[in-house]
Formats: sequence, structure tokens, C-alpha cells
Amino acid sequence: MHLFEKTVSSEMIFDGKIITVKKDKAELENGEIVNRELVVHPGGVCIVPVNEKGEILMVKQFRYPFGEALLEIPAGKLEFGEDHREAGLRELREETGAVCEKFEYLGVCYPSVAYLTEKIHMYLATGLSFENQDLDDDEFLDVLKIKFEDVLKMIMDGEIPDAKTQCAVLKAARILGK
Amino acid sequence: MHLFEKTVSSEMIFDGKIITVKKDKAELENGEIVNRELVVHPGGVCIVPVNEKGEILMVKQFRYPFGEALLEIPAGKLEFGEDHREAGLRELREETGAVCEKFEYLGVCYPSVAYLTEKIHMYLATGLSFENQDLDDDEFLDVLKIKFEDVLKMIMDGEIPDAKTQCAVLKAARILGK
Repeated sequence: MHLFEKTVSSEMIFDGKIITVKKDKAELENGEIVNRELVVHPGGVCIVPVNEKGEILMVKQFRYPFGEALLEIPAGKLEFGEDHREAGLRELREETGAVCEKFEYLGVCYPSVAYLTEKIHMYLATGLSFENQDLDDDEFLDVLKIKFEDVLKMIMDGEIPDAKTQCAVLKAARILGK
Repeated sequence: MHLFEKTVSSEMIFDGKIITVKKDKAELENGEIVNRELVVHPGGVCIVPVNEKGEILMVKQFRYPFGEALLEIPAGKLEFGEDHREAGLRELREETGAVCEKFEYLGVCYPSVAYLTEKIHMYLATGLSFENQDLDDDEFLDVLKIKFEDVLKMIMDGEIPDAKTQCAVLKAARILGK
């Protein structure tokens, strides 16, 4: 069978709070057996919230792997099996205080297809009104409102490296004709 | 200090061929100590190769985490410390047989900022000519030529979930006015 691999064995390496790591052996289409390192993640959801002034609500938070604060759209991790639409509405509310009239699906992106099972679902939120932000005790982030066009320029200029933000904002821009 | 975490300790969990997994403890800005699961990856490079007919050279290959073949732009992993421009030219040649006159940097994307150090550098390759494809013995992939507009439509319709492909093609589309 062409473009297919068969799992031969699977060894659990690490069962963490966020990720599970496995070391599998897979049989290739030529019969060769190779190692496949695998990171299992429950997936996430991200939201492009656009207010009536045409601004995107962005969040800035420290990102441990890079040792610095990054500018991103609001997002969160799913619990295994959780509905991504419900999770998206919850994360939007918790991180920015916003609720929305319209919540359009922008599709899904797979961040790193060679070894990571994570899928991030993307939404466009409009018709925003505001309630209280509701962060966890160990969650620190700033909310910034930035014009859609300026976010696009920052993405094109390399000032917003986060992949989900690039995917979701660039898709939203095509839908909104920006 | 606001939006900052300090590493308190770091425990090596898994030292694999592709990834290294660590379990760190970090001090938050309120003094609380939290666990941080960390996947260390050397990063990658991907290329949007556009031929004189306005087609993108895409590759289709089995992606183990999803159990299916995915359509993506050509890409590859960096060796630690390897120059991403050189790696990009090499991967383009190996996977598609193409060499190019122009190789424009499209910036970088960070696939999953909460726990993964991977950075993927993106390039636009034009002025293509063709030599021989040069795949590794354990590498199986098909090369497909698809019109730029059709790739865009497939991205917008959710038929190309790979994040690096979405980021790079959507950025290239804005640059090329498509």
C-alpha cells in the first residue's frame, strides 16, 4: 500500500499533564521498520475576536519555550473529547471578557504534522459585548486591542510568530476582504 | 516582573532522535511554582515552490500522528545549528528535484507556543528548473503540481490542515497579490 505505515509496537515514555510521549515502531511500505517519536496532545482552539471598531483582541503572555512574552489571539487547550466550539466561547470569555453574537468556524490547523497529534480549531468572533475577564490564578496575560490591518502588517513583517495566529488571522482576512 | 517566568529546575525525561522532552519547574510572577512540560525540537524549514505556470509543487506523504497521507508544501527538519536557508534549498531539491533562481524569506512560525520550542522558517521559491529528486531510502512521498488558486481554495475549504502550509501559502498569496 502506497503512502502508508503500520504501527508495529508502541512504548509509553511520558504521561504528563499536557502531553503524552510515545516511542512507536512502524513498518514502512518497503517493509523497513523505523522508530516514530510521537507527542499526543488533546488539541486546542483559538479565536479571532473582532470588535465594532475593526480591532482584534489580542493577548500577550509569557511563553516558556521561548523565554519571552508573545502576542497571540486568545486560545486554550481542549480537554480530551471536549467540544471545540464550546471551549472556544469559554476561552474567549475567560481571557478577554468578551461574549459574541456570531462565532464562525475557520477550520483546523495541525501545528506539527511529523510527530505531534495536536489539532487547533479556529474561530472568528464578531458582535462582541463585554463581561468580566475570568483568568485562572496561575494565568497572567494582558489584553491588547490592535487594528486588524495592523495585526496583518505585524504578521507579514514577522512580529507575530505564533502559527495559529498567522493561520486564523490570514484566513479571516480573506473572508472579510482585508 | 510582569509576564515573566523563571526556571527553577529542569528534568530530562526523554532524549530522542527528533525531540527531547523535559519537565521543568518555573516560578510565576506571583511566586507560585508550576510544572512546565517542554518539547525541544531543532526546528524546520518549508518552501512554497511556484513554477512558471503558477502552480505550487506540493508533496503528499503519510503522517504518522494522523494515520493518513497529508498534502503539504515541501519541508524538512533542521539539524541543530543548521542554516535554514541552506536547509530549505536542500529540502526543495531532495523532495521535488527543483532548484530556484529566487528564494525569498517569508518569516518564521512557531507551531505550538505553550510547550514546543520548534520554529519553522518559510520561503517562497520561484524561477524553478528541475534536476533529479533525491529521497532518502525510508522517505516516501508523491509530488503534485496544483494551481496556486486551487491550493488557496483548498486551504480556505479545510482540505489542507497542515499549519505551515497554511501560513506560508497565505503569506505568499498576499505578497503575490493572489
